[in-house]
Amino acid sequence: MAVSKQSVYEPLTESAAIALAVRLRLFPEGAPLVCREIGDGNLNLVFHIVNQQTGKGIIIKQALPYAKVVGESWPLTLKRAAIESNALRTFASYVPEYVPKVYYSDESLAITVMEDLSHLQIARKGLIEGKTYPLLSQHIGEYVAKTLFYTSDFGMNQQEKKQLAQSFVNPELCKITEDLVFTDPFFDHETNNFEDELREDVKELWNNDELHLEVAKLKRKFLTEGDALIHGDLHTGSIFASDEETKVIDPEFAFYGPFGFDLGQFFANLLLNALSRPEQEQEPLFAHVEKTWEVFANVFSDLWEQHNVEPYAKTPRLLQDVLHSTFVDAIGFAGCEVIRRTIGLAHVADLDGIEDKEERIRAKRHALRLGRSLILQRNSLNDIQEIRSLFLQAPLAPTN
Amino acid sequence: MAVSKQSVYEPLTESAAIALAVRLRLFPEGAPLVCREIGDGNLNLVFHIVNQQTGKGIIIKQALPYAKVVGESWPLTLKRAAIESNALRTFASYVPEYVPKVYYSDESLAITVMEDLSHLQIARKGLIEGKTYPLLSQHIGEYVAKTLFYTSDFGMNQQEKKQLAQSFVNPELCKITEDLVFTDPFFDHETNNFEDELREDVKELWNNDELHLEVAKLKRKFLTEGDALIHGDLHTGSIFASDEETKVIDPEFAFYGPFGFDLGQFFANLLLNALSRPEQEQEPLFAHVEKTWEVFANVFSDLWEQHNVEPYAKTPRLLQDVLHSTFVDAIGFAGCEVIRRTIGLAHVADLDGIEDKEERIRAKRHALRLGRSLILQRNSLNDIQEIRSLFLQAPLAPTN
Repeated sequence: MAVSKQSVYEPLTESAAIALAVRLRLFPEGAPLVCREIGDGNLNLVFHIVNQQTGKGIIIKQALPYAKVVGESWPLTLKRAAIESNALRTFASYVPEYVPKVYYSDESLAITVMEDLSHLQIARKGLIEGKTYPLLSQHIGEYVAKTLFYTSDFGMNQQEKKQLAQSFVNPELCKITEDLVFTDPFFDHETNNFEDELREDVKELWNNDELHLEVAKLKRKFLTEGDALIHGDLHTGSIFASDEETKVIDPEFAFYGPFGFDLGQFFANLLLNALSRPEQEQEPLFAHVEKTWEVFANVFSDLWEQHNVEPYAKTPRLLQDVLHSTFVDAIGFAGCEVIRRTIGLAHVADLDGIEDKEERIRAKRHALRLGRSLILQRNSLNDIQEIRSLFLQAPLAPTN
Repeated sequence: MAVSKQSVYEPLTESAAIALAVRLRLFPEGAPLVCREIGDGNLNLVFHIVNQQTGKGIIIKQALPYAKVVGESWPLTLKRAAIESNALRTFASYVPEYVPKVYYSDESLAITVMEDLSHLQIARKGLIEGKTYPLLSQHIGEYVAKTLFYTSDFGMNQQEKKQLAQSFVNPELCKITEDLVFTDPFFDHETNNFEDELREDVKELWNNDELHLEVAKLKRKFLTEGDALIHGDLHTGSIFASDEETKVIDPEFAFYGPFGFDLGQFFANLLLNALSRPEQEQEPLFAHVEKTWEVFANVFSDLWEQHNVEPYAKTPRLLQDVLHSTFVDAIGFAGCEVIRRTIGLAHVADLDGIEDKEERIRAKRHALRLGRSLILQRNSLNDIQEIRSLFLQAPLAPTN
């Protein structure tokens, strides 16, 4: 096949991307194709190729051998493209309705050719515009429940699970999370980035031994607990949505990690959006957090009852124990994510986009207190509904 | 090199083993060599080659492609030989004094050529003969502390750790432990093997929901928690000892597992030996259990203070948290091991060798109650000294 000639990595151009699509016969012969590079250029090239006759398109995503963040550039493994296409295929075997179809991938070129989702919108963008995506939590709850269950020791052959985990060892991308989510924001580190007005609040986090201990425990879970193949970066910027559809993209951080991580990241990003809204518009976000957990727990429990391969499956209280530790961990991970998105290297547009500076500082201060409460109080929460009161009480919490 | 000719697996004969030793120049040219196959033939061939002039020898261990247990035979991966030689080399970089030297290994032949330790005795055998090995716990405590610390996220680069873990993925050997240690003994499974007189006690274990829940949690830890490169089978039959020396052999079960597992297996096998002794001779075994933990905790803590690579290393109470969870898990794993060595597929000579039947049944019944107590009470133990009272009270414990 002609494609195999191109086995040495080089960044594609728009015309090379079209040539590849033609070689792969992804469009009818002679179709009038136009191509536009629509990536943000930080980590990946993203080519959108459209058949002008039919309007139908495809996406060719190509990893770049470096990451650009805040003007800096550091080398980054191209292997993440293979992790991404393999993760998309693995997830598609459990939740085809919630991930883009992969048409082709080439590890040496670091490309994934996949379904065009441009009829949908990135959920973060829509949420910032005030959209609510009524089915978002139903879909994400199902997505997380199924991907976690079926790739865990409860849902698949336990020996095959070890081999699957081996194929998703992902040191470089995990390091980004270990540093930027679990470490740097909690120390006076050069990657941090926050307004001067927040300095006193931030210093409190840096000097809080109790908080350090709890974040260290959560980090240890991320470093050592291989429950399931997780997405690893499930924020609202990794989700395409409309009122009817939800698609989870960009699983280049996928690896075998703890059950609670994806849920935690998703909760955090819903809460970060709530922080950017006037009080009377926050309700749909709280409802999403609650419904995501409820759907997750229900679907996971149903799968447990029906498809559990573990001989201890029927042991009374085992499912409850697994769900409870997942819940506690998810709340803790959410706290870390809320904090790092406020003062760490990679912010979110939900907060940074608040134009009024006083408002923005107030929201970020609220975020820091919410994050701290989520981490420190995660073991005493009994119910996902309590997130709401934690959120409302956070601004009143003492600064220790 | 001539050796590379032999790249297809076949079991060695005694003369082929000598030829290999000669080719590897492990003896002076023309040395008068004699070879004896000294393995038990269940899993491996073990050739002992000795230079009759000097008395010096070597061991060539070759994995067989099957396991024979209780007359049955099932296929077993030859890859375990590579796991074993790689684990020996990895451990030797941290504790050369406690593992046999590896001179050569060949993955396709499934062989490891290593130091002859025939001046030492298998610790289980010596303990059954009434020996006490005064340095055993000092050495094993150090061995476990250093191998765990240096292969964990606290003692080595966290990205290199992931790659090391990837190279030790060991599904087939882990399955043996998952089945025979954590599962079969707790259900009415055909692999179990026990005297009729124990049936009522065994049925209690099979029907004890609380016990099942706790064993399921311990099994989940074994399945998912990749703290460090563990030996995976650290019973007293995997240890060569004398009054001065200790060498840990046979790490073919090595993989990235939970911190507490090796300690738990070792504790259990010391306690199983104690169960086979008259009361007045049990003291050295209790002392070994206690000293192993104390040495482990001290050495691990020193390494933590001096060589910890984790940014949270200095966080107050983190070390205590890691040590405490290791302690609790070790006690629980010890309980599973005590039970499975009493009623599961693979027994220990300590108990099976008790000639008087009534005595033997009494000791085994004691073992089952001890195992159950270790598992159920592990969270309420504050101190390793409490193992002693748990042991003494176990026969009096209610059968639920």
